[in-house]
Order: sequence, then structure tokens, then C-alpha cells
Amino acid sequence: MLETRIKQTLRDVADFPKPGIVFKDITPVLKDPALCIEITEALAAQLKDIKIDVVAGIESRGFLFGLALAQALKVPFVPIRKIGKLPYKTIQQTYDLEYGSATLEVHEDAFKAGENVLIHDDLLATGGTVVAASKLVNQLQANVAAYSFLISLDFLNGKQRLDLFSPNTFSLVSY
Amino acid sequence: MLETRIKQTLRDVADFPKPGIVFKDITPVLKDPALCIEITEALAAQLKDIKIDVVAGIESRGFLFGLALAQALKVPFVPIRKIGKLPYKTIQQTYDLEYGSATLEVHEDAFKAGENVLIHDDLLATGGTVVAASKLVNQLQANVAAYSFLISLDFLNGKQRLDLFSPNTFSLVSY
Repeated sequence: MLETRIKQTLRDVADFPKPGIVFKDITPVLKDPALCIEITEALAAQLKDIKIDVVAGIESRGFLFGLALAQALKVPFVPIRKIGKLPYKTIQQTYDLEYGSATLEVHEDAFKAGENVLIHDDLLATGGTVVAASKLVNQLQANVAAYSFLISLDFLNGKQRLDLFSPNTFSLVSY
Repeated sequence: MLETRIKQTLRDVADFPKPGIVFKDITPVLKDPALCIEITEALAAQLKDIKIDVVAGIESRGFLFGLALAQALKVPFVPIRKIGKLPYKTIQQTYDLEYGSATLEVHEDAFKAGENVLIHDDLLATGGTVVAASKLVNQLQANVAAYSFLISLDFLNGKQRLDLFSPNTFSLVSY
């Protein structure tokens, strides 16, 4: 089963990015080309009943399977980036971190009004970053059609926060 | 011709990231799914006579076509990241910027000794970042087999610096 194989391939790194956190390292997954192709196909298959006009991937790890997924779905890809990286005119959303805050941006022509946007990232934790990305989508009058993650840390209840934007949250692996 | 179509799709943004620089914005390319698929195929086709064991993509934009290219070549993908992002044990290379310096990292198990590594990024400018990435490859006793870029700014002579590591530098678009 794909979920089992991904779990067996992920590497747990203790105390990263800080003491007490066990980080799910995806680099061993990226080293397995057959598994990567299966992951892309499985991410696309989960979305087969949902109308998706564009895939938005969150910097940086959301760029990896984000573009692959957009290619599999044959739809445009939009990068959602940290502040200061996108060259053209942007809109911003600032969100709280445990210490301080962070800001995400997209180009102001990233989404058209009414478009159905899939938001992709590698991992769903508490959902703070993904909520900010969702607000960027709505700020341009587009809809969040669904969320797609490689990994979901269900015990952090991120999905509850995403349900305010879309009921469709998918992942290949849950903890 | 693919080069012409990519050039017509790229957006020139004046004075980014600083006055006097005309930035090649790839986001319009990412919005064209048929063009993205052709780009991935063309990047892979350029490498058909070169033995590649692994594709290494440089954060962040090198993650986009980097993973797609690794999937097309059916080889592992390794992310080369800015300092502090990779969770496991890493090796580092620091390089000079116009003002200050920056540091790149890879996991210490990213490459095996003797492996043939393709380094990918979206754009080759002066080559400073790519040279640092190449040193990371050599630090782990692996070889730089080739370089692959979407865009090369030939007038900045980055290729001359890369020739010290590998004579094989490819790009789809040159200025």
C-alpha cells in the first residue's frame, strides 16, 4: 500500500526545527524515482472528482510535487512565495508564528476571479501557512477548491481551520 | 521553436531585485501547462547522451523543473537548500554575494562517492550559487556530470566558471 511505503521511506529527525519536534524528512522519498511518480499519480487521482483550474504550491517544498501535480492535471501552476521573492506586483497575507510573524505573497494576476484553486504543500501541520495561502486565493476572488498534501499531522487539527475555506482536504499519509 | 515560445512567454520586470536589473519572470511560463510539459521533455532530451545518476535542484525555483526532470530521467532528486532548512546532518558551502554572503547545504548522504550529478536551476547568471552547489557535490566525492538551466544570461559569463567542474552546460533559452 502506498501510504505504508511512504511511511517506511520518510525519515524521522528528532528535535528539528527545535527540541521536542520529530520532523518528517521527505528527502529519502525524493531519492526514490518510482515512488515519486506513484505519489504524483496518487495525488492527482485523489482529485479526480473535483474541478481544478489551477494548482498553487507553497514555497519551497510545495514547489516539488506542486508542479508535477499541475502537469499531471494539465492545469497552470502558481507559486505562493515568501515576501520579497516575486518580481511583479503582489498581494500579501501576514500570519502569526509561535514567535513573530511571516508574510506570503502571490502576483496580483496569479488567479482570475471565480477560478477553482488547489493549494498544495508537502505537509499539513497546524495550518497557519495554508490559511494565509487560502486568504490570498480569496483576496483575488478565486475559490479554494481543495487542499492536497503529501503528509497530514492529524493530531494538530489543521483540517478544522481549512474547512472554513473548503471541505476537501486530501493527503497520502496521516499521523 | 521552443526557445522563441519561452522567450515570448517570460515576463521582463524592470528594476528587480534592484534598480538597473531586468528580471526574467518565469511565472507566466508556469501558467502554461502544455509549455511546462514541453520544457521538461526538452530539458531531458538535452541530456540524452550524458550519464546522470541523480538530479540536484537548487532552492527554490530549481525545485520546480528539477523534480519534473528527475522524474523524466527516472533518477533520484536531491534538494540543495539555504542554510537551516534541511533537518538531517548537512555539509555547507558559503559563497560571496555582492553585499555579504550566503550558505547552501545538502544532507551528508545526498550523493554517493562517484555518482554523476546533474545540477539544475531555473536561471544561470554569474554562477556564484551554482559553483557553491558544485562544491557540495565534490565535497561528497561525487562528480558534476552536467548543468541544466531553463535560462542562461550568457553575457554574464557564468558558463566559464562552471567549465571548471563540467564542460556540459545546457539551457533552453539564452540572452
